[in-house]
Amino acid sequence: MLPHHFTPVALDKSYRLMNHGPTVLVSAALGTEVNVMAAAWACVLDYGQSTKVTVVLDKSTRTRELVEQSGHFALQLPTKSMATLTQGVGSDSAKNVLDKLAKHGVKTFTAPGTNIPLVEGCVGWLACRLIPEPHNQQTYDLFIGEVISAWADDRVFRNGHWHFDTAPDALRTIHHVAGGEFLVTGDVVRG
Amino acid sequence: MLPHHFTPVALDKSYRLMNHGPTVLVSAALGTEVNVMAAAWACVLDYGQSTKVTVVLDKSTRTRELVEQSGHFALQLPTKSMATLTQGVGSDSAKNVLDKLAKHGVKTFTAPGTNIPLVEGCVGWLACRLIPEPHNQQTYDLFIGEVISAWADDRVFRNGHWHFDTAPDALRTIHHVAGGEFLVTGDVVRG
Repeated sequence: MLPHHFTPVALDKSYRLMNHGPTVLVSAALGTEVNVMAAAWACVLDYGQSTKVTVVLDKSTRTRELVEQSGHFALQLPTKSMATLTQGVGSDSAKNVLDKLAKHGVKTFTAPGTNIPLVEGCVGWLACRLIPEPHNQQTYDLFIGEVISAWADDRVFRNGHWHFDTAPDALRTIHHVAGGEFLVTGDVVRG
Repeated sequence: MLPHHFTPVALDKSYRLMNHGPTVLVSAALGTEVNVMAAAWACVLDYGQSTKVTVVLDKSTRTRELVEQSGHFALQLPTKSMATLTQGVGSDSAKNVLDKLAKHGVKTFTAPGTNIPLVEGCVGWLACRLIPEPHNQQTYDLFIGEVISAWADDRVFRNGHWHFDTAPDALRTIHHVAGGEFLVTGDVVRG
């Protein structure tokens, strides 16, 4: 069953889910195996006709192997109330913690039209097709994806804009500094 | 003269200046020409022995040409009070606004040991050497730099950590969403 408030975002607005530089959860699957990790190093690469993202995936991670072998992944935005979950899936590896997702209370679902696992409780999701770039992947652990579908929690993101100010505080996104310390996304200032 | 509070940051901690995904100003020089632009798409790529960053620089920008020709650039973090300046240098191009920096009140300085221009009023600065990657630059407008020196305003960043909570609110960093709307960096949550 899809989460409440799970709402499609137009592809040409999907970059705005990540434009403010939040920490993301990276999810991927291969057959029945599903994994999720955290990544602070994720960024928009392009927008418009073909929205693209970058994400750094260390060679030690199982999620990276699932991305490489399946050719797909999702980036999604955990909330302030998911800081402990985010730190947990960013610290443990499924290579030695076999029940990693259960241990950290991570539940996934899939949306119509895709079988990429998506993480419950997040407020933005970007389903991506890997654009293979072997040199970047090997030399820099840098992966490029093209966004093929995007969704957001319509309590906090609608009509192409974030509305953190009128939503529950627990739904704010987070930005990792180091060692489990996150900075919460704050209020709006106009330039 | 160097700004007050301008303090060196150890290279192995310099990634923490950008780990939370703020919007940056990109500066570069060639001979006596100096330019500054804004970029929301900047990210850490690696840390430790060799800290690296990525930044997307559109082909239409003059700053990109200065980066390509000089082989150096700086990324720096503007504050909440610099939102209008940031939007201004992100909208105008020096190719058709010849007094771009003066128009938007941008003042630069250089630090001992480097001639890369740095922008006054920011709270973190990363001086970078371009790692040439022609395929990424041409195909994706993606530039990779290795951090060669870093500094921060010690009112907000010291001992490898941000201290926004005890500093003036005007010194908080900003995260661009779209069209001059920024989200201000908020408070700490621990995971």
